[in-house]
Amino acid sequence: MSKSISPKITLAGAGPGDPELITLKGLRALQSADVVLYDALAGKELLDYVRPEALQVFVGKRAGRHTLRQEEINLLMVQFALTHGHVVRLKGGDPFVFGRGYEELTFAQAFDIPVTIVPGISSALAVPALQEVPLTIRGVSESFWVLTGTTGNGQLSEDLRLAAQSTATLVILMGVGKLREIAALLGNYGRQDVPAMVVQSGSLPGEKVVLGTVGTIAHLAEQKGVGTPGIIVVGEVVGLHREFVANSTSAWSTAMAPST
Amino acid sequence: MSKSISPKITLAGAGPGDPELITLKGLRALQSADVVLYDALAGKELLDYVRPEALQVFVGKRAGRHTLRQEEINLLMVQFALTHGHVVRLKGGDPFVFGRGYEELTFAQAFDIPVTIVPGISSALAVPALQEVPLTIRGVSESFWVLTGTTGNGQLSEDLRLAAQSTATLVILMGVGKLREIAALLGNYGRQDVPAMVVQSGSLPGEKVVLGTVGTIAHLAEQKGVGTPGIIVVGEVVGLHREFVANSTSAWSTAMAPST
Repeated sequence: MSKSISPKITLAGAGPGDPELITLKGLRALQSADVVLYDALAGKELLDYVRPEALQVFVGKRAGRHTLRQEEINLLMVQFALTHGHVVRLKGGDPFVFGRGYEELTFAQAFDIPVTIVPGISSALAVPALQEVPLTIRGVSESFWVLTGTTGNGQLSEDLRLAAQSTATLVILMGVGKLREIAALLGNYGRQDVPAMVVQSGSLPGEKVVLGTVGTIAHLAEQKGVGTPGIIVVGEVVGLHREFVANSTSAWSTAMAPST
Repeated sequence: MSKSISPKITLAGAGPGDPELITLKGLRALQSADVVLYDALAGKELLDYVRPEALQVFVGKRAGRHTLRQEEINLLMVQFALTHGHVVRLKGGDPFVFGRGYEELTFAQAFDIPVTIVPGISSALAVPALQEVPLTIRGVSESFWVLTGTTGNGQLSEDLRLAAQSTATLVILMGVGKLREIAALLGNYGRQDVPAMVVQSGSLPGEKVVLGTVGTIAHLAEQKGVGTPGIIVVGEVVGLHREFVANSTSAWSTAMAPST
């Protein structure tokens, strides 16, 4: 280890998938990185900005090894900072939205390594926006609530029950695999007829969209093969989607074609 | 008007204030703009990317003329697209989070002008992250709820009452002017001791932070002169702020120094 090494870590959000949705600050961090640790959700094209002499290390999580891998990532990050200098931990979306960025931050700080946080565009906000669905709009929805469909213990989040009783726009990440259960829960609170949307691979060329209602969305998503990785949006604002507006006579019960 | 004009509009988010937090896609839109319409919340430094021959038009809203000005902005945007070509409507934060971007989108589409949406980093997510406060963390908070403190009719949002009963992290935009009322409402639901934070001018050099609890935050913010434009964050995750952790013996009742 050379004396000239100044360990530092940047936790940077890569955005929702489209590589142009990284921030300028995130890009500059990549350009000055000695090591980049990236996961499956960060767009591969972003690695083109990394200097040829820098290390690029894929640290995507594998199913069934989740807990161990996070510890491995933390360790790798710190080790590379100590031996190589500037480590950029590039994470899909925003590092602090269901991203375990806080665990990486505090782990690094325990080694007195300075950490810079570079926020990223969260798919929770960007994917609905790219569908031209506003999360809030005067007179329709005054707030939005971002939830996870998958909690640590594998159960539906308790927050979903309360969310079912609110008029907030609901954005549910990591929930497509439990779409049927989530829709059933919301339906139990009388929300069957509220517009709902599932977007798979939002912002990317392979983007798929399915529109329906809480009562129909699980069946429609299955029928149209819209699955993970995806986000679920539930709320009256989804009724503003151009496909709903264009088909307003049958909008609330009919499947819509993907918008791509 | 030349025949070569191809009207188009880009609704781009400028991010929370730090000019490096614009996306690469937003930057490229600015570089190709014929006209840029910008408001008070978008960082002025971003105008350095605009071509010298392009028009730069400030369309910041003035107090008391809110409704009229939005209509004026819509009209200006369409007129400039028809006469000049590519108009970039640069908006603070994300165009679709309390940003009236949807109104601008639909107005432009009514004139058959193609509109591209470029999401921006919302202060709702980035400002807590830059304070190293995660909006979600396993075992503490599984969701976050973004609300406005100021609704169209000037009343507190009804959503706040339901939010007061949830364990979601609450992020309240445009609420600092009503901090006392908001804290009182949350307190009425037994949330007095929940950690709370107000951040003014987050991500900018003049950033100010005050930490306390729902019961103390309004008084502390006043005492420390932390005001608008700012965001309020309420939830157990705020207790993870480094100042809380450093002062953990007195954390829940004592004012913390600004972190800058």
